[in-house]
Amino acid sequence: MGTEDDVTPVARPGRPYDRSRDAQILAVTLDALAEREYEHVTIDAVAQRAGRAKTTLYRRWPTKVDLVLAAVEAAGRPPEADELPDEGTLRADLLAVVDSPWLGGPERRLAIFTGLTSAARSSDRLADAVRTTVTEPYVAVYRALLQRAVDRGQVAAELAPRVPLLAQVIPAMSGHRLGATGEPAGREFFVSVVDQVVLPALAHPPGPATPA
Amino acid sequence: MGTEDDVTPVARPGRPYDRSRDAQILAVTLDALAEREYEHVTIDAVAQRAGRAKTTLYRRWPTKVDLVLAAVEAAGRPPEADELPDEGTLRADLLAVVDSPWLGGPERRLAIFTGLTSAARSSDRLADAVRTTVTEPYVAVYRALLQRAVDRGQVAAELAPRVPLLAQVIPAMSGHRLGATGEPAGREFFVSVVDQVVLPALAHPPGPATPA
Repeated sequence: MGTEDDVTPVARPGRPYDRSRDAQILAVTLDALAEREYEHVTIDAVAQRAGRAKTTLYRRWPTKVDLVLAAVEAAGRPPEADELPDEGTLRADLLAVVDSPWLGGPERRLAIFTGLTSAARSSDRLADAVRTTVTEPYVAVYRALLQRAVDRGQVAAELAPRVPLLAQVIPAMSGHRLGATGEPAGREFFVSVVDQVVLPALAHPPGPATPA
Repeated sequence: MGTEDDVTPVARPGRPYDRSRDAQILAVTLDALAEREYEHVTIDAVAQRAGRAKTTLYRRWPTKVDLVLAAVEAAGRPPEADELPDEGTLRADLLAVVDSPWLGGPERRLAIFTGLTSAARSSDRLADAVRTTVTEPYVAVYRALLQRAVDRGQVAAELAPRVPLLAQVIPAMSGHRLGATGEPAGREFFVSVVDQVVLPALAHPPGPATPA
């Protein structure tokens, strides 16, 4: 789940605390966010589900914002930000991002993002965290994939000026759909945006007929 | 300002109230939203700026949500929703929407929308109102303009399936930019989205070289 890195136990003089089980609590927090609106998530319910004492959670994360912030930080950023997919075509690379196993795969991940969007509405700190650890890394991934396609000659060089704006289209459309319908953007919506907006704007015919 | 229609004085037996000056108070409310975050807008400041007694406003709109809701309703919906621009080219039609004089023209209108976006984060009722009176009508306007271009043969008929999704791109990108930068999407950003995303996805070259 990519959550282990940030929860290595740290020995602090005078404040011993076993952080080795934080990962499990934070994963349960993400599960809760995937299942209901942020306002209906409670520290008590997370504690119960994680099989931990409420006081343990409250001591470590005094408020729900603190708990969710910790869960976002533990999730890290999309692994594609560190290693770009390389599937042979721009379309396959873009679809590899939505099909990523990160955070349990597309279904759980998109549900978590929906919960985080409702959380971001309630807290400026959470909004900042979601922007810097989720939205901005995804825009960077799309920008890198599109620019690489230009560099490889898969996209005409004169279309390179469109890359920065087109890199924002998928996150923007996902957020818009969520706001307009309350429904998370699923894989099908993502594929439509790739095939009907992003690839055509780069003079690529939509898939699956896109040449390799 | 397009606000007069909804504030015609109404005589109600047993509850006389002069609504003829509501329009001015609600216009001042929009000015306040154009200038600062929703959380910093106060009924008292609106009353002072409108030159009205605070009690008058509180009697009519007991909470800030009520006041802003009334301002949104008084503003009505984009006039383009009732009469589509018809400037001869799809590009000119799309730009006519951003250059609309509605709500005082692009600068004030986009600033108001920024304020309403911050308001929508604070109140589900306001979020619903913004969605139904601003976002959805704009998506409908873009959908109608794109579909009309298909019907007129300005866009290839086989691209018609892209119209519903492309109609969402401009509102989605404006909302995304605001969330990502805190800055409203100005005219220049809008033109970029038209020229680098929407028109190319309909196999139109970007303007200003777009043929009439």
